[in-house]
Order: sequence, then C-alpha cells, then structure tokens
Amino acid sequence: MKRKITLKQIAKELDVSISTVSKSLRNSLEIGEDTRLKVQAFAKFYNYKPNNIALSLKNRKTKTIGIIIPEIVHHFFSTVINGVEQVANENGYSVIICLSDDSFDKEVLNMEMLANGSIDGFIMSLSKETQFKGDFHHITEVINQGMPVVMFDRVTNEILCDKVIIDDKAAAYEAVQSLIDKGRKKIALVTTVDYVSVGKLRTDGYTKALLDNDIPFNEDLIIKIEDVDTCEIIISRLLEDRAIDAVFAVNELFAVTIIKTANKMGLRVPEDVAVIAFTDGIISKYSTPTITTVSQSGNKMGNKAAKMLIDRLESETEEGEEEEENYKTEVIETHLIERESTD
Amino acid sequence: MKRKITLKQIAKELDVSISTVSKSLRNSLEIGEDTRLKVQAFAKFYNYKPNNIALSLKNRKTKTIGIIIPEIVHHFFSTVINGVEQVANENGYSVIICLSDDSFDKEVLNMEMLANGSIDGFIMSLSKETQFKGDFHHITEVINQGMPVVMFDRVTNEILCDKVIIDDKAAAYEAVQSLIDKGRKKIALVTTVDYVSVGKLRTDGYTKALLDNDIPFNEDLIIKIEDVDTCEIIISRLLEDRAIDAVFAVNELFAVTIIKTANKMGLRVPEDVAVIAFTDGIISKYSTPTITTVSQSGNKMGNKAAKMLIDRLESETEEGEEEEENYKTEVIETHLIERESTD
Repeated sequence: MKRKITLKQIAKELDVSISTVSKSLRNSLEIGEDTRLKVQAFAKFYNYKPNNIALSLKNRKTKTIGIIIPEIVHHFFSTVINGVEQVANENGYSVIICLSDDSFDKEVLNMEMLANGSIDGFIMSLSKETQFKGDFHHITEVINQGMPVVMFDRVTNEILCDKVIIDDKAAAYEAVQSLIDKGRKKIALVTTVDYVSVGKLRTDGYTKALLDNDIPFNEDLIIKIEDVDTCEIIISRLLEDRAIDAVFAVNELFAVTIIKTANKMGLRVPEDVAVIAFTDGIISKYSTPTITTVSQSGNKMGNKAAKMLIDRLESETEEGEEEEENYKTEVIETHLIERESTD
Repeated sequence: MKRKITLKQIAKELDVSISTVSKSLRNSLEIGEDTRLKVQAFAKFYNYKPNNIALSLKNRKTKTIGIIIPEIVHHFFSTVINGVEQVANENGYSVIICLSDDSFDKEVLNMEMLANGSIDGFIMSLSKETQFKGDFHHITEVINQGMPVVMFDRVTNEILCDKVIIDDKAAAYEAVQSLIDKGRKKIALVTTVDYVSVGKLRTDGYTKALLDNDIPFNEDLIIKIEDVDTCEIIISRLLEDRAIDAVFAVNELFAVTIIKTANKMGLRVPEDVAVIAFTDGIISKYSTPTITTVSQSGNKMGNKAAKMLIDRLESETEEGEEEEENYKTEVIETHLIERESTD
C-alpha cells in the first residue's frame, strides 16, 4: 500500500517550513512563485489531497469538539479542559485534546489533522511560538472553511472569532493593590521572559497600581526570568539587601520558590516578605505557608468557551447557513484567594 | 439535514445502557433476544451505521495515536502523555487525547468515536468504573477490528494486548523496607477505597515487607479513605495515640495532608513521623518539607507504550498483514526519590 504523503513530509523533502507548504497549497501570494509551484507540483505528484476527507464529510456532524492547548502539565489548562468537558457532555458532545507543546509547527499540524473530519469546531489557546511569529494563517484557514474557533486566555486581535479571556491587567492591579493595602511598599514583580500577551498586561496592571498609590516605579524590581534557579538567585540578593517586602509572581512555581528562598535565609512569610501568585493551582493550596493567589477561574473559562462554540455550531445547523458574524469576547472575573502568604 | 443517530441516543431512546446497545449491534448473545432485536431494528430504522467511515478508510493510515486516560488533573498522566508525544513526534505521528473521567460510558463513547477513522491505534489506562464492572467488550471490539491497543498502569488480565506497567507490589515493598531500615516499626498504609487493581498490589507489597522483617501486621494501620478530610481525622488520632512513626501514602495529596496534620499538632517530620508517597508529582517537590516518593516514571511509561504501539502499526503496514500476536508486558522500573520527609 502506498502511504499518503503528509504536509510534514513535503516540508522535509523540499527543505521548507510547514507553514510555507501550507500557504503554497492555498496558492498564497505571500510565497514566491518558484517555491509555490514547486510545492504544488510535488504535492500533486505524490497525490497529496488536503482535506479530501473533510470535503466528503462536509455535511456530517461529528458532535466532537477539538481543544488545542500549549501544554498539559499545567493546572490552569487542566481546569479549562474539565470546564469544556462538563458543558460539552451535557450537550451530547465529545471532546478531543491535542497539545501544541508551545510549538507553531505542532499547532499547525494538529489543527490540520483535526479539521480533517474529526471535529466540528475548535477551542484553543495559542502556543508561545505562534504569538511570537504572529502567523495565524492556519486559524484563518479553518475559519474560512466554515469551522468555528473559540480562543481562550492566549488570544490575538488579528483573528476575528469568539474569545474568552480574563482581564489580566485588572487582576494584576487588584493583587498589587491588596499588597499596598497591607502596608507593603517595596513590591517586586517576578515574571517570565516571553512573548505571551498576558505577560505585558500583568506588568501594566502592576505598574498602574504602584503609580495610582504614589509609589515610585523601580525598574530593578521587575524581574524577568526563565527558571526557578534564577528566581532563587535574584530573590535572595533582593531579600539580603532588604530591597523588597512583597512579591507578586506570575506563577505558582516562582511563588513557592520565593517562599523557600526566604525560609532558607531565616526570613518569615508573610511577616518579612508577603507573596501572591497568579494562577490558583495545587502547589498554592498545599505549600507551607499556603499561598494567596489570583484565581483565573479556568473551569468557568472552559464552561463559557464550550457554550459559545456549541451555540455557534447549533445555530449553523439549524439555519442551514452561518449566522451573521457577531463575534463576542467574554471576560471572566478573577478573584483573589487569600491564604497564609499574605496577612 | 438529517442528523446521524449516535450510540448514546439509541441507548437513551430505548432506555438501555450504552454497553447493551453496543453489544446488541454486534449481535452478542450476552443480550436477550428481545432487546437485541429491538436495538437492531431501531438502529436500522434510523440508519445507524457503526464504523461506516472506518470501513471506507480501512487502508488509510492516519498517522495518529489516540490516548484514553481517566483524568487530566493528575501529574502522573500528564507525564505519560508527554512521554507518548516525544516518541510519537519523533516517528511522525500525531497524538489525540480523550478523557474517560473514570466513567465506563465515556470510555466506550470515546473509543467508538476515535476508532471511527481518526486514529491508527490506542494507548489507554482503564477507568475505575470499567475495572469495577469488568466489562471490556469495547476494547475487544477495536482489537478485533484490527486496531492495536497498548494498555498502561491500570490494565486488565482479561484483554490480550501489549501492556506497560510498573511492579506496584515491589515498589511498595521497597518503600516500606526503606522505612524499616531507618528504624521505623509502626508504619501505616494510607490508601484509597476503590476498585483499581494497583491498590491491592501496593497493599500486598506493604504487608510482605512487614512480615519479611518480623513486624506484626496490624489491620488498624491500613487506612482506606476517600478524601483528605478523613485522612486528617484518622491520622491525627493515630498520631495522638503515638500509634505510628511512619506513613506510606498511595498519593501525594494524602502525604502532604499527613505532614500538615503532624505540623498542626506540633510534631516534626521526619523526626516524629516519616512520610513516603507513591507517585512523584509537583506537590512532593515543593512542599515543606519536601516529600520522599516512589517515582512511577510516567515519562518512560509513555515512551515505551508509544514505541510498542508504533512497532505494531509499522510491522502491520509493511507486511501487509498482522504479525503473530506475541503480546508483551513491559515492566518499567520505579525508584525511590529520597527527600526531606524521611531521613
């Protein structure tokens, strides 16, 4: 049996990117004519048929929702998935999950695979690499094929579709304000070095809270790091200099590392340094002391995303054609869960 | 457009279980003739065609692996998924994940959906309910259709297929022996009330370690509980009576709850009570004190399961027919990760 050639194999054979192959096959003018014709000829020779299954199944509803998330060892995404499952199952839908591993190529390949007759619509959060590249053609493509997409958390303004987000700026503002209300003035922000939109919004919220309270903004207290080891080194230096009395960390791992660093130095949490983490996961609940967090309400996000997608799918089915494209962006409320690391 | 009727809808309409519908359609003699004929007639009237897509795609390789796991908010399963992804991606395969939510019906529906042309083979861990019911007909069915299945962790002897497990008994034995080596004699086992095969094996390992060391077995120290609240109540009573000097817990949540309970009572870990947990997750790494664990090597399990599945898929493709069914069970080595909760 002759095996069907895949997008990935074409890319490898011709030594071009998957994105180039995908765009060439759609005859995109973004790709030079030479490459475009070469890819098309190669695909034709090897009998590559994009979406041949999808076409024959066009009128078949799978009653299945596809979720694409960047990573799985991450409590927030797990809670979103549970939220999607709840609403999907109540409405007779199954759910399929694929991981992009924060890779653009994997995101493209997984969407191409799922769009090929396995699902009716997507719920997705963008990979870091996709956000960095700003290349969303694979998403435009499935939407143009009539397959609805709902984005959550890591979204982009460049795609018109339904979205579910939290107000990252307001959430960060609330967290930092709560530290100020408790008398803290030397507040560090520990965040990641990355290209994810939410990072910038959280930094904006942090900065605004300081300025609104007439606390001078100190650039040295915005700490952009890749890993927990660096976190430990920088935080121990700041604690030694008594340069900080509180930390707002963008994830639980940083928060628990800060607490352990303080303990090692004989400092007490929250007396000597208060700590708040973004994202409410299991570490915060079970660390000693337990950690005050900003809950992103992943479950609610998943519920809402599933509801938006199913509403769109069912309205299409019943009317026989697509609805007017009145896309909505739903903002889910966050809230501060106060625990022992602030007081 | 007339919608295609699903297995679930037939079950609902006729007020029988999904399993009954599925078995009736395969004309299984387990189901009484009345019901069987009723289901078949109903399915025929509504034009239900099981696997009609699968048949037409029989020779099409999807280059996709389907994973079915009981739950997602669980570090162990996340690491298995990452392990499967690694090997799958290296070999040009994509991965699709579905959750059974520890429900038999969801497991059946998800397998039926995925077997319907979306994937080439399954990697799965049984749901609790499936293990309890002992009903594996849905798995037999996909295997009979020529679709290979690799089971991991929660497996059953009733299905002949490739399997990846750890030696739960030996792993529990090693953990308890290490506590005995440190001079502990009053060792409690904290386990769950459930029907999962691994629970029994771990209890056997615990018991054997005690007996081999001439420590009398005390039934009161085997604590079967559902939740962390019960865990706290029972453990605090045992600690108050000085009835235990060590605990072997079958999961991280129980272990961290035991540590917090001891701390609340002014007892020290490990001095007053040593703690070991089964499953190495993020709580153990970040709790205070950090927790000694039995690592299940989820990543290696995933690697191995993917390799076994792909080997079977590729040998089928190349030979044009199935290999002799020489199914293997691979046992992945566990190891003790010593941290602060024992010393």
